[in-house]
Amino acid sequence: MKKAIIIGATGFGGLGLVEIIRRHPEMKITQLVDIKDPGKSISDVFPHLRGFCDLIIRSPKEINFDDMDIAFFSTPDRAGMSLIREFYKKNIPVIDFSGDFRFGTTEEYAVYAANRGLEADHLAADLLPEAVYGLPEKYADRIKGARIVGNPGCFSTCMILGLLPATESGIISSDTIICDGKTGVSGAGRNSGEANLYPQRHENVNTYREGKHQHVVEVENVLKSAGGRDRKILFVPQIVPLNRGILTTMYMDIEKGCDTEGLLRIYRDYYERKPFVMITDKSPNTADVRGSNRCLIRPLVDGRTGKLVVISVIDNLMKGQAGNAVQNANIMLGFDETAGLDVPAFYP
Amino acid sequence: MKKAIIIGATGFGGLGLVEIIRRHPEMKITQLVDIKDPGKSISDVFPHLRGFCDLIIRSPKEINFDDMDIAFFSTPDRAGMSLIREFYKKNIPVIDFSGDFRFGTTEEYAVYAANRGLEADHLAADLLPEAVYGLPEKYADRIKGARIVGNPGCFSTCMILGLLPATESGIISSDTIICDGKTGVSGAGRNSGEANLYPQRHENVNTYREGKHQHVVEVENVLKSAGGRDRKILFVPQIVPLNRGILTTMYMDIEKGCDTEGLLRIYRDYYERKPFVMITDKSPNTADVRGSNRCLIRPLVDGRTGKLVVISVIDNLMKGQAGNAVQNANIMLGFDETAGLDVPAFYP
Amino acid sequence: MKKAIIIGATGFGGLGLVEIIRRHPEMKITQLVDIKDPGKSISDVFPHLRGFCDLIIRSPKEINFDDMDIAFFSTPDRAGMSLIREFYKKNIPVIDFSGDFRFGTTEEYAVYAANRGLEADHLAADLLPEAVYGLPEKYADRIKGARIVGNPGCFSTCMILGLLPATESGIISSDTIICDGKTGVSGAGRNSGEANLYPQRHENVNTYREGKHQHVVEVENVLKSAGGRDRKILFVPQIVPLNRGILTTMYMDIEKGCDTEGLLRIYRDYYERKPFVMITDKSPNTADVRGSNRCLIRPLVDGRTGKLVVISVIDNLMKGQAGNAVQNANIMLGFDETAGLDVPAFYP
Amino acid sequence: MKKAIIIGATGFGGLGLVEIIRRHPEMKITQLVDIKDPGKSISDVFPHLRGFCDLIIRSPKEINFDDMDIAFFSTPDRAGMSLIREFYKKNIPVIDFSGDFRFGTTEEYAVYAANRGLEADHLAADLLPEAVYGLPEKYADRIKGARIVGNPGCFSTCMILGLLPATESGIISSDTIICDGKTGVSGAGRNSGEANLYPQRHENVNTYREGKHQHVVEVENVLKSAGGRDRKILFVPQIVPLNRGILTTMYMDIEKGCDTEGLLRIYRDYYERKPFVMITDKSPNTADVRGSNRCLIRPLVDGRTGKLVVISVIDNLMKGQAGNAVQNANIMLGFDETAGLDVPAFYP
Repeated sequence: MKKAIIIGATGFGGLGLVEIIRRHPEMKITQLVDIKDPGKSISDVFPHLRGFCDLIIRSPKEINFDDMDIAFFSTPDRAGMSLIREFYKKNIPVIDFSGDFRFGTTEEYAVYAANRGLEADHLAADLLPEAVYGLPEKYADRIKGARIVGNPGCFSTCMILGLLPATESGIISSDTIICDGKTGVSGAGRNSGEANLYPQRHENVNTYREGKHQHVVEVENVLKSAGGRDRKILFVPQIVPLNRGILTTMYMDIEKGCDTEGLLRIYRDYYERKPFVMITDKSPNTADVRGSNRCLIRPLVDGRTGKLVVISVIDNLMKGQAGNAVQNANIMLGFDETAGLDVPAFYP
Repeated sequence: MKKAIIIGATGFGGLGLVEIIRRHPEMKITQLVDIKDPGKSISDVFPHLRGFCDLIIRSPKEINFDDMDIAFFSTPDRAGMSLIREFYKKNIPVIDFSGDFRFGTTEEYAVYAANRGLEADHLAADLLPEAVYGLPEKYADRIKGARIVGNPGCFSTCMILGLLPATESGIISSDTIICDGKTGVSGAGRNSGEANLYPQRHENVNTYREGKHQHVVEVENVLKSAGGRDRKILFVPQIVPLNRGILTTMYMDIEKGCDTEGLLRIYRDYYERKPFVMITDKSPNTADVRGSNRCLIRPLVDGRTGKLVVISVIDNLMKGQAGNAVQNANIMLGFDETAGLDVPAFYP
Repeated sequence: MKKAIIIGATGFGGLGLVEIIRRHPEMKITQLVDIKDPGKSISDVFPHLRGFCDLIIRSPKEINFDDMDIAFFSTPDRAGMSLIREFYKKNIPVIDFSGDFRFGTTEEYAVYAANRGLEADHLAADLLPEAVYGLPEKYADRIKGARIVGNPGCFSTCMILGLLPATESGIISSDTIICDGKTGVSGAGRNSGEANLYPQRHENVNTYREGKHQHVVEVENVLKSAGGRDRKILFVPQIVPLNRGILTTMYMDIEKGCDTEGLLRIYRDYYERKPFVMITDKSPNTADVRGSNRCLIRPLVDGRTGKLVVISVIDNLMKGQAGNAVQNANIMLGFDETAGLDVPAFYP
Repeated sequence: MKKAIIIGATGFGGLGLVEIIRRHPEMKITQLVDIKDPGKSISDVFPHLRGFCDLIIRSPKEINFDDMDIAFFSTPDRAGMSLIREFYKKNIPVIDFSGDFRFGTTEEYAVYAANRGLEADHLAADLLPEAVYGLPEKYADRIKGARIVGNPGCFSTCMILGLLPATESGIISSDTIICDGKTGVSGAGRNSGEANLYPQRHENVNTYREGKHQHVVEVENVLKSAGGRDRKILFVPQIVPLNRGILTTMYMDIEKGCDTEGLLRIYRDYYERKPFVMITDKSPNTADVRGSNRCLIRPLVDGRTGKLVVISVIDNLMKGQAGNAVQNANIMLGFDETAGLDVPAFYP
């Protein structure tokens, strides 16, 4: 059994890790760390964990570096930026949930930081070349040997997985891809402020950060490296009254002569050996993937306009966060990619 | 006081009319008609109406043509198609909620019917030339003298209002406009079958009829007549777990040199004298219009891609249905356009 | 037109007042006051009010005492306690939404304050004898001449209205009345902290403050004054995932020989001239009263156990707060009790 | 691996079984049967099962009696009543989800049937003496050898588990126990008619069958056999806008001298070796048990009135249905009671 430490244990990301690793056949949690509630049991914070995981939360000062094989940083942007260096020095592989290690250069990070409203300087710039973008469906080979993995943004994963086959097959002919995203409220985290109070979210849908969401940089980066060409993502996110779930609807021009059948074939071939990506010719529901690590994708060519429409759904807390992180960990530690993650959606 | 009859009184459309006309200063309901629950009081069907409206529901056979000045057909497709002829003969103006009288020709109706899965033949084809498309912001002049008004589809209203200023100003340069729609569940009506049971809709978002929604025909028709050019709408609707509300996000190419400020000016000028359309430079919420007859529109030019994004929200049961119908009735009967409709959104 | 000032304008209570008074035929708002967002328009805080009410929010220091006929304090406990004295001195009638003026003695206030976790000392103890408990269905005569009215707690109103007829008719034989309450989340107010974030409230029901809710004191007080006997209320509240709505189910022993028919008669007689209380022999829904000032009550005698069950529903923001406050104001200012409040529930 | 058949596979009960047995270490599903959708794959009905369970649904005529060790009847009342005899003859143990085999006598069944609006005659009356009431926390010994187990009603389980320790310890002094229940909508099943359409359930709470719910018979039966005395349950159920979850709040008189500490001790002792019942001194949330087989119980003595309040929560589809059924199966087949059921709640 490999030993895992979770830094940032009391957020939704930390909770997701606890739940997945608890059922993992080859990994166990030895340390939970948070600046919030140190000294408390995690099952005092989340009563449903009682009897399943009752570890005491430690403060960052109490981390025992000798009792871990892998570290998950389920921390906000910039919170783990410096601390991760200590893990790196001690040769402990790290998976970070924030945007801190999703970019190879400080320039890219600065764009991300500006969109996010963060300071632009990176406190561990020297480690950026070591960091690998943690999308297993694309970068499994590099993730395998990585010491720092930047777990992708939830929207990014949903968009990139939906766009990779079309991008790599070279059929996209437009310079801009339009991505219309819908996300549940848990994407904003467990302590997400007044705007996410129940009466403000219930019975309401709204757009936000139209064209300016911080995940766009990641998507454009990956697609460029996949397709060899600069393409822009015009992304408009929307908050919908769900706890969990992301659905993105993506629109682009494609070469003439492509039809839905052909696209389905391209997508199925591309993801043939990827255990968590399912292609469908039916309308996807976020409920189809809630609680699972799956991404469900429907590509279709609109007969009237010839455009390609790709609909992609994930659970933002699973394939969009903790599930994907464990998938990365499985690859890094040499386990089966699906270990701990082989569960169907929770329905209804 | 003008007298109104509602055919199809026990659906959400009929209920909406009862609630609006109840507070209308110059109109009152004299007859409620439905094939469901005849003989019952409407307040037995909707207990919250008790004391506000306790009229007995009549069967269609019991309609008294001498006791009405205007008729609202809040009936499903094809249900009022033949009956409306009787009202026409007796010179009683009719507003119909279905797709039956939204099109000028049987050819257009046939396309609509095919998308909807209906029979293609129109049972009152001779009346189609008399029918006016009931979008007051565009066709008030023709609505004023109309004897049959086809109340628009809920999605159609939301899209058309969002697209008219850009279309008429001639700045749209793309052949296809991408419309991504999100609707609450009441849009499917009060008796809408297994797919709309609570456990299937709660905590779920899904696409449906991608590219094939029946409202597309209306939108393309109106835009063509407004812009003098054939443009296609690629429309992907989504169901979100709301009772009420539609938000559509629309994407298109525009002439170079347009910026958000300019667009805001175009939109504000266009709707300057339209009491129910509000232009905003903030992210719209469906909660901003819930229960009101307003349409709230945000046009913005994306700096990175140069594309125009228009976000438009309505309450599907108000501006998308009963509210818009009463607005039409006000115009037809010579009342102030806002009579009975001058109420803010219901919040929270 | 009488002039109203609202202190605490940016909460749900203040918003409710704005919405009701906007449609009131004899009252208008001249001043909105809040320590939050002074200088902003209320329609910047609540965009749906744009065009309906765009008054600028003032800070408490900017209150103009010469421009008001009545004052609503929609403020938290203890926030208006001292300030109200100034209004009292200037002979301006005040309706206060908090617990500050719901009690006739400092002793009773101290019990309330302890349950609520507040300091026990009352800063305007000398005014308590002037204050009237603002339940119009019971104390209209005293409210008429009052200068300070303490608007009841939302749960209190729902319980008291459900219990008054049985209490005054003398049929209750048990010493304790069991009250099981369910409330929507807006009851906790617009800035209600982490526990009310969407993901924590959605798809969740829980009890809280079992037996110790601060509203119990009010209920016991009123029932004692109504029934001449000390009875205890055992109240367990629950939060349910609604925006609005309270349903309380109440259980008590009654004298032998009472049946449902008799109880319905007692309840109907008691509330015969009360425009906002409706008696029913069907199962009440919170949706029946959402957005209305009604209280809907079903009394029934359980055949198997002989116990009386009373089910009572209100909208916590209307009859439970702002609606009831305007009803009080109507009585104080000599208007028809239903002025501004004569609207049916908002459905669906 | 023992082989399980599920009759009634396409409802929520059948789905729950598929999900649990899929992860069961010693049981597998060999046959899925339903009168709905025979010939389809279960993953066509529930797309999230694709790749996890793709068995083809059989019609009842296609049942292969040679390929099963245990049968789950997840069928409505009276649907499996006769068919179960065939399984009995072939010595295949059966667990039935309906009320058909929850009662030892036709008289009791007749009361249940009347409350439920069913025909009163039992079509397999001769088998009733064989049937065991499937509440493992009380009847594990009898379940072990049973050939027909009647799985309890969801509300019944929640109430009985909350009341057993107090009943058996002899401290309850009242003749009637008041039970106030709140249930999510999935309790009504997957095909549950117009009343459960989303717009009718969303943002609504209502009571129903006040004092007359069919589960009361079961509860009174079990308590009588446990406490040796006739006690009545006055049960008022409420529907709350949840997918899953039951919370019941129960009120009763107790002997003087009992306090919360003592009660907690009694409850903890009683359930010490019961793996799925947790006692707590905090307010229970339905979210604490969603998706798990747990029952979480809080007993507390109200200081002001001396009454005992017991709050009990379960997931109606797990401990209230499929989870409890698998727990029974584990006991019948000699497995560890928690096999397949050892998962924490799904949160958020």
